[in-house]
Amino acid sequence: MHLVTGGAGFIGSHLVDALVSKGIKVRVFDNFSSGREEFLSHHDGTEMVEVFRGDLLDLDVIKSAMSGIEMVHHLAANPDIRLGTEVTDTDLKQGTLATYNVLESMRSEGVTKISFSSSSAIYGEANQMPTPETYGPVMPISLYGASKLGSEALITAWAGTFGANAWIHRFANIVGPRGTHGVIFDFIHKLKDDPSRLEVLGNGMQEKSYMSAEDCVRAMMHLIGHCDSNVSLYNLGTGDTCSVRRIAEIVVEESGLEDVSIEYTGGDRGWAGDVPKTSLEVSRLLSTGFNPDMASEDAIRHTARALIAEIGL
Amino acid sequence: MHLVTGGAGFIGSHLVDALVSKGIKVRVFDNFSSGREEFLSHHDGTEMVEVFRGDLLDLDVIKSAMSGIEMVHHLAANPDIRLGTEVTDTDLKQGTLATYNVLESMRSEGVTKISFSSSSAIYGEANQMPTPETYGPVMPISLYGASKLGSEALITAWAGTFGANAWIHRFANIVGPRGTHGVIFDFIHKLKDDPSRLEVLGNGMQEKSYMSAEDCVRAMMHLIGHCDSNVSLYNLGTGDTCSVRRIAEIVVEESGLEDVSIEYTGGDRGWAGDVPKTSLEVSRLLSTGFNPDMASEDAIRHTARALIAEIGL
Repeated sequence: MHLVTGGAGFIGSHLVDALVSKGIKVRVFDNFSSGREEFLSHHDGTEMVEVFRGDLLDLDVIKSAMSGIEMVHHLAANPDIRLGTEVTDTDLKQGTLATYNVLESMRSEGVTKISFSSSSAIYGEANQMPTPETYGPVMPISLYGASKLGSEALITAWAGTFGANAWIHRFANIVGPRGTHGVIFDFIHKLKDDPSRLEVLGNGMQEKSYMSAEDCVRAMMHLIGHCDSNVSLYNLGTGDTCSVRRIAEIVVEESGLEDVSIEYTGGDRGWAGDVPKTSLEVSRLLSTGFNPDMASEDAIRHTARALIAEIGL
Repeated sequence: MHLVTGGAGFIGSHLVDALVSKGIKVRVFDNFSSGREEFLSHHDGTEMVEVFRGDLLDLDVIKSAMSGIEMVHHLAANPDIRLGTEVTDTDLKQGTLATYNVLESMRSEGVTKISFSSSSAIYGEANQMPTPETYGPVMPISLYGASKLGSEALITAWAGTFGANAWIHRFANIVGPRGTHGVIFDFIHKLKDDPSRLEVLGNGMQEKSYMSAEDCVRAMMHLIGHCDSNVSLYNLGTGDTCSVRRIAEIVVEESGLEDVSIEYTGGDRGWAGDVPKTSLEVSRLLSTGFNPDMASEDAIRHTARALIAEIGL
């Protein structure tokens, strides 16, 4: 049985689907702060998925969820990157401290394999694009990015000190059905509130790599099956980028709304700590034989359609 | 006035000396877990140094120590790297969480400049030697290294999100008078216990960069005066290395003891999480016009003499 922390959340629930489709039983560990029961409801009655409601900040609770676990997929985190500009201890607790508790409970219960969802946010404003895994120094500019790099460091330290096996996935912006945050989600909610205008934070020139959640979990499963080193560290993305301006246009197109005025607040970024341009070098991932089904723009259109259906306009 | 966390400790007290010699008043913040009052006693009665006894894990206490502070030098940390193999939350608390509290108290009190003592331990077992600042991916293998990388990440995130100015110094092994831990300190204590033999952890082939504490604080002061970017990140070292075998020989020579049997426990490293070989690329540091006075072997001999005098044999 595999444990998926954050398994009721956006990417976590897609990973649960992928594991179950391979015949792997899953224990979901989630505090349901952003996860939702309905993201897993299609597994009800199948006996493939059990749900453990708990908080990763409670070491005893996560220890008790480790019994019988062969491998941990640690996806739980604060999903709202912008929050760090106002509340400074959320990423520290939900990120770094939660990861410590996951690792410490694994150690005490004899679980040795961990797959971790890191982020391109660890690169900060890199001066090399596309940015490869070998880029340094890594200097995240958001508290979210800091918590991901702090978590990576704990994981490699556990591998080096206690012999754990680790897979670290540095995600591009992941988008798709069941999204609970992020730019597409925000745009749809803004259009729902006011179908005549769409306010875009920044000048719209922000440009980032996007990957569909379906491709993301396929890549994670592929890498876990493929790699055999002590710590496997890969960028996960599509190799291309899309601008926020283009995302706004796609969301408006898919909304079916007419005469929407797209308005920009100006400035080079959405908020302090937002990285205006990110592009992940993914040649290492592709060299393992993995190919994403959707490019960035395809993933965004696919997501806009799915979230408009989920949220309603 | 500058604040020096860990200012009663080994490197911290040398930094206090250097700041005072430039005419800068210093507030020392220390919990005296490894710091010692006698390391600062030569400043008694000068009104240049005031001591604030407190714990960095108490946010309110460190906030109250920030009043009137122009710049923070954050050196406080658990100095015992090996402890992480047995107690897993010391580095997390004394490293990452303490750094969070320092940054959060700076933010709330309007202090914007921080100089931080990081470590070559963040590089883990790098496959490029000498290892430059641009090396990646950084994968520390000790819990100490993880706490330093986690702290770096918090600092760059604070700089990116709240506009702090930061200097990050990635230290080689720093040795010198007032040392309270480390290989030379351990060797002298072992010889004090048993002058006939010296047990060396590992096969003695471990090889690392060493820098004298005096050169280290000179380099820190130089970089703070020299650099003007948002985040300045430099390796601090001498550009050469010395083996543990050679350190054992030097300590025995300086001890004046005869017929000491040097015995090796075997294995390529002292303990799990110990990095057997480190060599820092320091051309960036040298390009700023800084030159260390002592090479690795000189720094070790200088330290052996000083610590033998302090500890007694």
